[in-house]
Amino acid sequence: MRFELNKEFVEELQLAIQERSDESIKSMVAELHPADVAEILGELEPDDAHYLFNLLPSELTADAIIELEEDDREELLEDLSGQEIAHAVIDHMDSDDAADIISELPEEKQDEVLSNITDIVQAGDIVDLLKYDPDTAGGLMATELISVNENMTVRNCVEEIRKQAPDVGEFFYVYVIDDQGVLKGVLPLKNLLLANDNQKVKNIVEDIISVKTDDDCEDVANIMRKYDMVSMPVVDSIGRLKGRITIDDVVDVIKDEADEDYQIMSGITGDVDSSDSVFKLTKARIPWLLIGMGGGILSSIVVKGFDSHIALHPVMASFIPMIGAMGGNVAIQSSSIIVQGLANNSLGLDSAGKKILKEVLGALLNGTIVATLAFLYNIFFASDFALSIAVSLSLITVVLFAAIVGTALPLGFNRMKIDPAVATGPFITTINDIMGMAIYFLIGCLCYSMF
Amino acid sequence: MRFELNKEFVEELQLAIQERSDESIKSMVAELHPADVAEILGELEPDDAHYLFNLLPSELTADAIIELEEDDREELLEDLSGQEIAHAVIDHMDSDDAADIISELPEEKQDEVLSNITDIVQAGDIVDLLKYDPDTAGGLMATELISVNENMTVRNCVEEIRKQAPDVGEFFYVYVIDDQGVLKGVLPLKNLLLANDNQKVKNIVEDIISVKTDDDCEDVANIMRKYDMVSMPVVDSIGRLKGRITIDDVVDVIKDEADEDYQIMSGITGDVDSSDSVFKLTKARIPWLLIGMGGGILSSIVVKGFDSHIALHPVMASFIPMIGAMGGNVAIQSSSIIVQGLANNSLGLDSAGKKILKEVLGALLNGTIVATLAFLYNIFFASDFALSIAVSLSLITVVLFAAIVGTALPLGFNRMKIDPAVATGPFITTINDIMGMAIYFLIGCLCYSMF
Repeated sequence: MRFELNKEFVEELQLAIQERSDESIKSMVAELHPADVAEILGELEPDDAHYLFNLLPSELTADAIIELEEDDREELLEDLSGQEIAHAVIDHMDSDDAADIISELPEEKQDEVLSNITDIVQAGDIVDLLKYDPDTAGGLMATELISVNENMTVRNCVEEIRKQAPDVGEFFYVYVIDDQGVLKGVLPLKNLLLANDNQKVKNIVEDIISVKTDDDCEDVANIMRKYDMVSMPVVDSIGRLKGRITIDDVVDVIKDEADEDYQIMSGITGDVDSSDSVFKLTKARIPWLLIGMGGGILSSIVVKGFDSHIALHPVMASFIPMIGAMGGNVAIQSSSIIVQGLANNSLGLDSAGKKILKEVLGALLNGTIVATLAFLYNIFFASDFALSIAVSLSLITVVLFAAIVGTALPLGFNRMKIDPAVATGPFITTINDIMGMAIYFLIGCLCYSMF
Repeated sequence: MRFELNKEFVEELQLAIQERSDESIKSMVAELHPADVAEILGELEPDDAHYLFNLLPSELTADAIIELEEDDREELLEDLSGQEIAHAVIDHMDSDDAADIISELPEEKQDEVLSNITDIVQAGDIVDLLKYDPDTAGGLMATELISVNENMTVRNCVEEIRKQAPDVGEFFYVYVIDDQGVLKGVLPLKNLLLANDNQKVKNIVEDIISVKTDDDCEDVANIMRKYDMVSMPVVDSIGRLKGRITIDDVVDVIKDEADEDYQIMSGITGDVDSSDSVFKLTKARIPWLLIGMGGGILSSIVVKGFDSHIALHPVMASFIPMIGAMGGNVAIQSSSIIVQGLANNSLGLDSAGKKILKEVLGALLNGTIVATLAFLYNIFFASDFALSIAVSLSLITVVLFAAIVGTALPLGFNRMKIDPAVATGPFITTINDIMGMAIYFLIGCLCYSMF
């Protein structure tokens, strides 16, 4: 029952498209799930994708377009007029998806699309949704939902659902509101199915957690994850029901946030994946490489300041990579724990000072272990006594410094409302490279003058 | 309606627990959501947590225990006998959660718990679930579900649901099976609510995607995410319905996988967070630090091989950090794109060779940019001509090497069924540090001999 896209399928389809054999194309694709169609559209060349898009029924392509990667979608919609987009795409979508897609279009095309939407009520909903910041609950919610008045009986309620259902896709809950439209609770369909026809909705309604339209998406995702919710009602500042957020959208938020943090940590900005163009991939990486470059230049200035010592004791140079690597590794370890804790809202109630203290203790422990190992190695196999002492002392100092910076920086960024994830990866290793060199050569010179 | 845990609340509760004023404790906690109770139990000292646990109704604590961090849970269950765990915890849980918790207990306690479960059918289900690998669909699924025969009418079906519902928590779908128990499809409650009483289930059943008990958890998560599913039926090898996986469990899988990859990339093994003990945090980090140490020692041996050249041109040492940083950064960038693509099943259909070629092109572009910048800096502000050439040539070479290794290594690991995420972070930067030093000094010596 499950479709697996492979190279053979794509090649066969390309052939059918080149031969314009519409019937075999349709027989290959028309029965597939929209998510699979999206995958296929993403693999085809733009011209072929266009041809397929025009051939398939609007319901299917509209659902597939939502699932496409943003750049593939842009390419596909580029050649369509505002009117075509309205009728072939937007008319068949829920309001939240429609608003997302319209917001990606160029300004002038947006108005053309909006004025051509068939259902004026839907158009109004979309216009309202476009006003919300896309990173808030309002930007994530759909307006399609089933709501019933708390004073209805179960029988009326089922009739009401019959009326509202055609406009709403899948739903598992009915939202209960009062005469003013204020959210009073929720009615799982299960309760409705098992209730007596004459019972009042008011008497079987269940309490539910809701969020406000301007609540942050990431908070909404954390709340839905924490309370295992499948659907989250969104209310305005005075509690009136405005929309609902479904778990599939939240799963995407959770996944996207995690992917974004992963990419920032690895020194990549902007949402890219391996199927993007070489140019886009390069552009996403160069900012962090330039930071690394700048750090490298600063490090070189620091090291150059010790030129004469290196000429005298060239073996000092051989431990530069070790000092750099250990500082970088520890800084990344410390910062990533903090960044992850902040993202998951799982840092607990300890103060920043207590967290740094904990990292310092851990760093002392780890620093002592690696410093001891380095000392044993140096004494038995490698360097003179002065350098052995210098390397080990530097390791402890650098590891300590890295742990403090790695903990304090993301906490500080977070307090300043800067994404703490930025304080990981190349950024923090660069800082530690520069400081590490200064620490190592200062301690090294001191040791050579003493021993 | 939403509870926010803060320090004041915890302190007030601690006081109430110390004073053994049970009534005020209950009034503070008894109305909270189990997820909030879990958060509170996690913040309390073990003794206080125990006291609270014993005071609250079993239904609430059982649900809270599922939401606890594993080590907090272990601590809480340690002092309870198998019989107590069975009656106070397992009796109030769905089979999947019960199996998870029992599997964490020591061997001898597991049998004691199992033999004390009140409902013998539930005990049997749990014993069956315990046989599945926890990383498969079987290990993730619950056996509590509503299933009806395809030959029933809607009226019979609703009666059947009434019968089965008390054993099942929340549900949005009814699964339809034939006389042999083979899954035939799904009936969303919405369809059931809107259908005619005399319609046959067979005629309103919808197609559904299912997975097999031994399918991998991560694959299940990707499928549910791709097809926006809320609940996934699990069947055995001949298609008989065995259980269902709900989206909340899958959200946790997605989040856990992402967190794990993030931690591996930052050089942390084992699932830790900032609230863990210093010792646990240290233990999770030391393996990667030792890899870094080993790499540092190998690098030092490489660099030491060029002692005499460094003594002659000590300025060579000053660019060691830059070469190391650029190689490491590029390797991380390349490998993380591949690891993420593999995890998201979004690498597309290109061959490994084509992916490496693409990375090589990108690396050439980025390498040329940084090499040019480095050359300009060196010529105008810093080094002699030979070193300027050496640094820039090394940068291009190191960046190229890093891109190839960063792409090929995770792809190779994946093919060898090793978690590709391991090929990121400290592991890959260490390889690049060593090779980077060899490349830089070889090119450096060559340049000094030529210019």
